Amino acid sequence: MIDLRSDTVTKPTQEMREASFHAEVGDDVYVEDPTVQLLEEKAAEMLGKEAALFVTSGVQGNQIAVLTHTNPGNEVILEEESHLFYYEGAAISAFAGVQPRTVKGNRGAIHPADVEAAIRPEDVHLPETGLIVLENTHNRAGGAVIPLETMRATYDVASRHGIPVHLDGARLFNAVAATGISAKEYAQFTDTVQICLSKGLGAPVGSIIAGSQEFINHARKWRKRLGGGLRQVGVIAAPAMIALTEMSKRLHEDHELAKEIEEGIKEAGFELAYPVETNIVIMDVAKTEMNAEQMVEKLEASGIQAVPFGPTLVRFVTHYDVTKKDIKILKKVFKSIKNTL
Amino acid sequence: MIDLRSDTVTKPTQEMREASFHAEVGDDVYVEDPTVQLLEEKAAEMLGKEAALFVTSGVQGNQIAVLTHTNPGNEVILEEESHLFYYEGAAISAFAGVQPRTVKGNRGAIHPADVEAAIRPEDVHLPETGLIVLENTHNRAGGAVIPLETMRATYDVASRHGIPVHLDGARLFNAVAATGISAKEYAQFTDTVQICLSKGLGAPVGSIIAGSQEFINHARKWRKRLGGGLRQVGVIAAPAMIALTEMSKRLHEDHELAKEIEEGIKEAGFELAYPVETNIVIMDVAKTEMNAEQMVEKLEASGIQAVPFGPTLVRFVTHYDVTKKDIKILKKVFKSIKNTL
Amino acid sequence: MIDLRSDTVTKPTQEMREASFHAEVGDDVYVEDPTVQLLEEKAAEMLGKEAALFVTSGVQGNQIAVLTHTNPGNEVILEEESHLFYYEGAAISAFAGVQPRTVKGNRGAIHPADVEAAIRPEDVHLPETGLIVLENTHNRAGGAVIPLETMRATYDVASRHGIPVHLDGARLFNAVAATGISAKEYAQFTDTVQICLSKGLGAPVGSIIAGSQEFINHARKWRKRLGGGLRQVGVIAAPAMIALTEMSKRLHEDHELAKEIEEGIKEAGFELAYPVETNIVIMDVAKTEMNAEQMVEKLEASGIQAVPFGPTLVRFVTHYDVTKKDIKILKKVFKSIKNTL
Amino acid sequence: MIDLRSDTVTKPTQEMREASFHAEVGDDVYVEDPTVQLLEEKAAEMLGKEAALFVTSGVQGNQIAVLTHTNPGNEVILEEESHLFYYEGAAISAFAGVQPRTVKGNRGAIHPADVEAAIRPEDVHLPETGLIVLENTHNRAGGAVIPLETMRATYDVASRHGIPVHLDGARLFNAVAATGISAKEYAQFTDTVQICLSKGLGAPVGSIIAGSQEFINHARKWRKRLGGGLRQVGVIAAPAMIALTEMSKRLHEDHELAKEIEEGIKEAGFELAYPVETNIVIMDVAKTEMNAEQMVEKLEASGIQAVPFGPTLVRFVTHYDVTKKDIKILKKVFKSIKNTL
Repeated sequence: MIDLRSDTVTKPTQEMREASFHAEVGDDVYVEDPTVQLLEEKAAEMLGKEAALFVTSGVQGNQIAVLTHTNPGNEVILEEESHLFYYEGAAISAFAGVQPRTVKGNRGAIHPADVEAAIRPEDVHLPETGLIVLENTHNRAGGAVIPLETMRATYDVASRHGIPVHLDGARLFNAVAATGISAKEYAQFTDTVQICLSKGLGAPVGSIIAGSQEFINHARKWRKRLGGGLRQVGVIAAPAMIALTEMSKRLHEDHELAKEIEEGIKEAGFELAYPVETNIVIMDVAKTEMNAEQMVEKLEASGIQAVPFGPTLVRFVTHYDVTKKDIKILKKVFKSIKNTL
Repeated sequence: MIDLRSDTVTKPTQEMREASFHAEVGDDVYVEDPTVQLLEEKAAEMLGKEAALFVTSGVQGNQIAVLTHTNPGNEVILEEESHLFYYEGAAISAFAGVQPRTVKGNRGAIHPADVEAAIRPEDVHLPETGLIVLENTHNRAGGAVIPLETMRATYDVASRHGIPVHLDGARLFNAVAATGISAKEYAQFTDTVQICLSKGLGAPVGSIIAGSQEFINHARKWRKRLGGGLRQVGVIAAPAMIALTEMSKRLHEDHELAKEIEEGIKEAGFELAYPVETNIVIMDVAKTEMNAEQMVEKLEASGIQAVPFGPTLVRFVTHYDVTKKDIKILKKVFKSIKNTL
Repeated sequence: MIDLRSDTVTKPTQEMREASFHAEVGDDVYVEDPTVQLLEEKAAEMLGKEAALFVTSGVQGNQIAVLTHTNPGNEVILEEESHLFYYEGAAISAFAGVQPRTVKGNRGAIHPADVEAAIRPEDVHLPETGLIVLENTHNRAGGAVIPLETMRATYDVASRHGIPVHLDGARLFNAVAATGISAKEYAQFTDTVQICLSKGLGAPVGSIIAGSQEFINHARKWRKRLGGGLRQVGVIAAPAMIALTEMSKRLHEDHELAKEIEEGIKEAGFELAYPVETNIVIMDVAKTEMNAEQMVEKLEASGIQAVPFGPTLVRFVTHYDVTKKDIKILKKVFKSIKNTL
Repeated sequence: MIDLRSDTVTKPTQEMREASFHAEVGDDVYVEDPTVQLLEEKAAEMLGKEAALFVTSGVQGNQIAVLTHTNPGNEVILEEESHLFYYEGAAISAFAGVQPRTVKGNRGAIHPADVEAAIRPEDVHLPETGLIVLENTHNRAGGAVIPLETMRATYDVASRHGIPVHLDGARLFNAVAATGISAKEYAQFTDTVQICLSKGLGAPVGSIIAGSQEFINHARKWRKRLGGGLRQVGVIAAPAMIALTEMSKRLHEDHELAKEIEEGIKEAGFELAYPVETNIVIMDVAKTEMNAEQMVEKLEASGIQAVPFGPTLVRFVTHYDVTKKDIKILKKVFKSIKNTL
């Protein structure tokens, strides 16, 4: 099977396994694991933040951000199909007691004026706006890059109102690879940023949350409450370091393959929901006689794994374990499916 | 001052004060206040539900509904400008730990197909849809009546998916007055319903939440936790009974006055955001050189109180304490403001 | 029936009903009800605090205190049978997300050294101590008065650690009546204080929460979320004002009757759990062949209402609606029950 | 340094590192990691439960148990120094919205009659008792084993009242090693059980939560919300499998060393808080002129790491990385410290 369901399915590289095997470890609840400390320092540096914390997943990093930034009864502004709202089991409401205020974006990017319009004035009936969240790249908008200018303008609005900004940068390095703008440049327009090491970067486990030292101090306790205080975490921090420092350099290869998929979709006479910007491709089968589930089944029958992403949308994600040869096969599969219609 | 800010400003009538003065009372935490019991029985009967509970406000009734119907980590589907989402301080997230899933309605009415599309399938990433909320009449949609047919179709969708429906009927009796459809007919398409006695119905304090006996048993404990377990509550239940049984019959008078305001706005050359259906009038000053705040100030200077309801929207609400003469004055004020522009 | 179950069962006096009838009212959500404002000012003055807020019950006042003072994941130190822990449906955990840390008191009074020992140091495993709660008089300790010196010493400990103190003074005026120490003197050793107007003070509905102006500003929004934002609240604030200013002067009468009950219990050969200090009497039937439920049934059969207060404890509470004659009857009932054993 | 602070500090063995290096992995969010599946099956079998779930820590396993078993506003009965109450940052209140009801145990074991007395009857003032938690072995009671008979009797009480029981078995295999009673025999008297693989069992990361299949299905979603849904988790599940199946057989060695420490404490003329039962030793320096902090500092100066465990208590924990030689050194250190007093 050629697995294009998600970039989370990548298996650790040989180099990662070796790094884990040799990792120097300690008890990180006592802040004594040297490997995770190196990783946190490196991540903080790359993101231009004072400090960083290793967490077990992007969800955990995002939840910690919300728990640390907000108070119960606050409202959090985020894009209406953002991961934090759409895919995290309503955890920000269950745990942090905050209400999402969703705003429709343009390919994942909320207009800064719409952010400002959604900020609540002080009134006894209204929640206080406690946080603004951006997602870059934006998964459900087809891996779209949020422009740096949008981030800057949003941060300006937020700063004017004294509201912190969190970046769900689970796939931030895909934006970096696509634009050449560094992670630090993006992260300058946020107070905190989460990056995921187990998506395109290929680590078996782990994400990073970065921000001010004070933020990280509080985050560490929320991580403990969530059950993310680990012991000899160096065994997963070591491969995560390779993901962060080495694998981030090769994401353009995934983007090239995604462009190939885009081409294959068009050549076969199918349609795309959005033009491809990074490593995510969203096909729209609305004009065929199939729905997304049926298309996914047909692909599966031909050895291709993809996921339904809405009634007529199918998502393909490229990653380290996908080869050019795989994409050639996929292109043929597209054509042969088309021919059966 | 002519106070058109809200129908909550009505003062208790002489009859209400007398009813309170003579009310037989007991300790309602021990379920021994005969006056509130009569009110609850009457309300249950009028709403066609097994049981009802007196609560101190519409907010409290709505919060109890969410607390009783849902579990933390659930999602609640509601209209994007519904009171429960917009005006209750994110309390459903703070207290019940649930995430609002807002859907845009047409004059407050979410299309049943849009409700169905927003229901989440079972998946480890997703919250479970725990409740659907309707608001009738819909405040921010300008007092719009949600059609009975929409309610029926929504209830069908909900029932098919095994999801309860709650009606925020704070102004349900305005819908009743506007359509002639009884409260019971509306409430048949919901599992629970909240009606507010201190808005157009004029009681000094109180709302009702109604549903099955089992629901009310649970609701009673949530009311206690919220601090709504009162003692000799008969002193406010007695006027509330008059509100429910007598004042509900005169709401058409408020609607006529609202129509007069609509006419006055048009005659003066101003515009309406929506056609008037009940006792709420929303003026839109977008095409003037004023914003809502400025319009409200000008009105205030002429002895009229109204509220800004968005950057260019101004809300007027008619109620028992507003007279025909007041509206005549208002009409003149509209014209004179127009003349100064 | 002679109702000694609780001082909450008192019915409003004729004077209270008249005050309600004539009360000047406004919409308190707009902060325009003059009667509640007078009450809040008077209460703040009597308690020596900057500001006060009318709430619908003692539970609501206590919950607002916890919601306003603490953050989720905090720990609240309170006596192990305090009302806030024992009788409020775990609401502080459900709503404020805080964990009670119970400490055993001596007749309701936790030793200040035990408070200090319960304060948590900073550590990643531990909750932060966010609030200390005292209850004076202490209901389950038999209406015991917490000595002023204990309150002062506890406040010293709290201040040294930067932790706020809240007083659940639902029956604070009983302590005042018993000791001659003013409410203001007690309240000086707390940051916030809740007093209940519908217990011994006899108002039909309502409590007060008092503290700094900043605290009250935040409290107002939590009150709204809890559904305690009322409209023409003057109709209940007016009788509450009489409760606060007039009825507080007569509580010594209730204490005298409670002493009579104590005497009656002893004379009949029964035992007390504690010596009587205020208006609460706790009988212990452990040495009889009855349990509390059975004793309550026997009393009921003789026209006396009391409540079981533990497996062998029965609580009697005196209040405005209890007369000397009632207590004479009760004394006879004690003797006749004794004779049947 | 000889590190006796905790059994969490053990470093992965060579065999564990090799198992990780060669582990077959998949994406566990898609339930496709074969290594974690084997581990979960093995754990379920050893614990006699239908199903098990790998989680990142004991805290996470415990929190999931509470989130899955209870509803907000419930009360959870647990021992007053249990880990779940004492060391988890009040997370059960912050996340699950439940109130701990602590009961004093005898060496960690709450008497079943005391459990029963703490169960709440149905009443509008009271929380519902939603869960009973036991901890075996009990950390703060000095690694005490909760007798099987106590567990059986507690489970009987719970079953009679329809309340589930959760076992915090972070160190359950120490009880197994001490008594010869199998994990399955202990777990038969609980609905769910958490065991920690990264304490005495030596895995770098991970715990197991086990229960019915239905429980685990719900637990999986709560784990996702907490950020514990990992990807190629096999890299840590492989060493965890060795911890579970191999390391569990050698815990008696740790117990022997703990007995040696006990002997050393006595020989040097110091005192123990409790007799040693498993791998935890609690020294009490109350009768010396030192407090716990000072004792820990003196030990540290002699190359021994231990932790203060109360004002006069010092905890030592034996584990895989501690040798007989280490304990010989410790015994000398005890004597030399004694001589300096």
